[in-house]
Amino acid sequence: MQNYKITLQYDGTKYNGWQKQKNTQNTIQGKLEAVLTKMVGTEIEVFGSGRTDTGVHALGQVANFKTLKTRTCEEIRTYLNQYLPKDIKVINIEEVEPRFHSRLCAKRKTYLYRLYVGEKPNVFERKFVYNENLNLDVKKIKEATNYLIGEKDFKAFCSLKNFKKSTVRTIYSIDVLEENQEIKFIFYGNGFLYNMVRILVGTLVEVGLGNINPSEIQNIILSKNRQLAGKTMPPCGLFLVNVEY
Amino acid sequence: MQNYKITLQYDGTKYNGWQKQKNTQNTIQGKLEAVLTKMVGTEIEVFGSGRTDTGVHALGQVANFKTLKTRTCEEIRTYLNQYLPKDIKVINIEEVEPRFHSRLCAKRKTYLYRLYVGEKPNVFERKFVYNENLNLDVKKIKEATNYLIGEKDFKAFCSLKNFKKSTVRTIYSIDVLEENQEIKFIFYGNGFLYNMVRILVGTLVEVGLGNINPSEIQNIILSKNRQLAGKTMPPCGLFLVNVEY
Repeated sequence: MQNYKITLQYDGTKYNGWQKQKNTQNTIQGKLEAVLTKMVGTEIEVFGSGRTDTGVHALGQVANFKTLKTRTCEEIRTYLNQYLPKDIKVINIEEVEPRFHSRLCAKRKTYLYRLYVGEKPNVFERKFVYNENLNLDVKKIKEATNYLIGEKDFKAFCSLKNFKKSTVRTIYSIDVLEENQEIKFIFYGNGFLYNMVRILVGTLVEVGLGNINPSEIQNIILSKNRQLAGKTMPPCGLFLVNVEY
Repeated sequence: MQNYKITLQYDGTKYNGWQKQKNTQNTIQGKLEAVLTKMVGTEIEVFGSGRTDTGVHALGQVANFKTLKTRTCEEIRTYLNQYLPKDIKVINIEEVEPRFHSRLCAKRKTYLYRLYVGEKPNVFERKFVYNENLNLDVKKIKEATNYLIGEKDFKAFCSLKNFKKSTVRTIYSIDVLEENQEIKFIFYGNGFLYNMVRILVGTLVEVGLGNINPSEIQNIILSKNRQLAGKTMPPCGLFLVNVEY
């Protein structure tokens, strides 16, 4: 069996997220497995680097699957791009060693959140940016990000209430860029909890509005209390940028 | 009555073009007039710089309308952006002299056609680029554009068979840019006939494929025969970029 690493781009607007579900094939993993299974003739299981939620996009999601080596990588890519819907694209596919696992081997992930704070976003990007007409203090937001850097228990920024596993993650850095009434939040970390990026942005928006002081971020982290953090931002502005190994 | 000049951006994907029609309100002009009429309380007529066809997009369409001056330009823009659908955005609105007419006063128009010649376009731009996996000789295409520059009778590049008015137009210049498997065709002219840009691109594609020699373009123009030109390219790749006065 050959192990293949696949890099994907998708517009998550109309999907129920990455992970396959019993009741619907309308997930990225579901679409991918269906086309691969059709190509190979036997059932193929695809392992993703992580689940993206309903409506979340990817510029570079990574997954892997195993099958007999009967086609070149280029042939598989072309087949997938032909039969996958137009909102899912295979960017790259390559042979990797048997032990490679897209989730277990992931070292670093980058997420981008796009927030348009003007009257109305560019019509061609309206589905790929969240819009709320807000007056945010970006300097305060940047100050607040300093308190989020490092290895911390991010339980307060996780939507799952009874999450048994460790909620400790490391954020390496956060960039906040402002241009043409759009604020881009870019998070680099070793991994992110369920809804973590969207809650982090929601909390930073509260800081930008003046409802939370930058230094209060420390207390929110220590509280491990979801109620003290900001709201979960809508999925349309969120992109999994890439996964590094 | 105050005359207003309005600059619009729209994703034409789901509209039956610019011009209002009897059977449907699903046109850009129809949407615009409906919201303006709602705002003002009396029927408003909007004059566009030109019709864009079904499925064609605009980065900077210009129109004008007259009404009593009871609101500031900013108030009108905000109202329109709030009540127009998300795929139509008012970029700018300004007061102009009574004699200004968006179509009659237009001096120069720019159109862009986006053609993706690779396997599958970027998923986030898939509705705003036409995709056909082609191997085109861009050097030949650039050579052919030279024969299209100047004041000429472009009857061969017009879809309307019994067009009574003059089919003479001036093309000031054409840029052909190639980057990341996408070819951008940019046309600068004093005006364009029905489907003219899409037929020009269809003809240049034939040149790129080797089916028409660059110098044959002269004969196609002189023939005034629509049959000798290339096919009409699909609307999704076409953008009205701007209108100058």
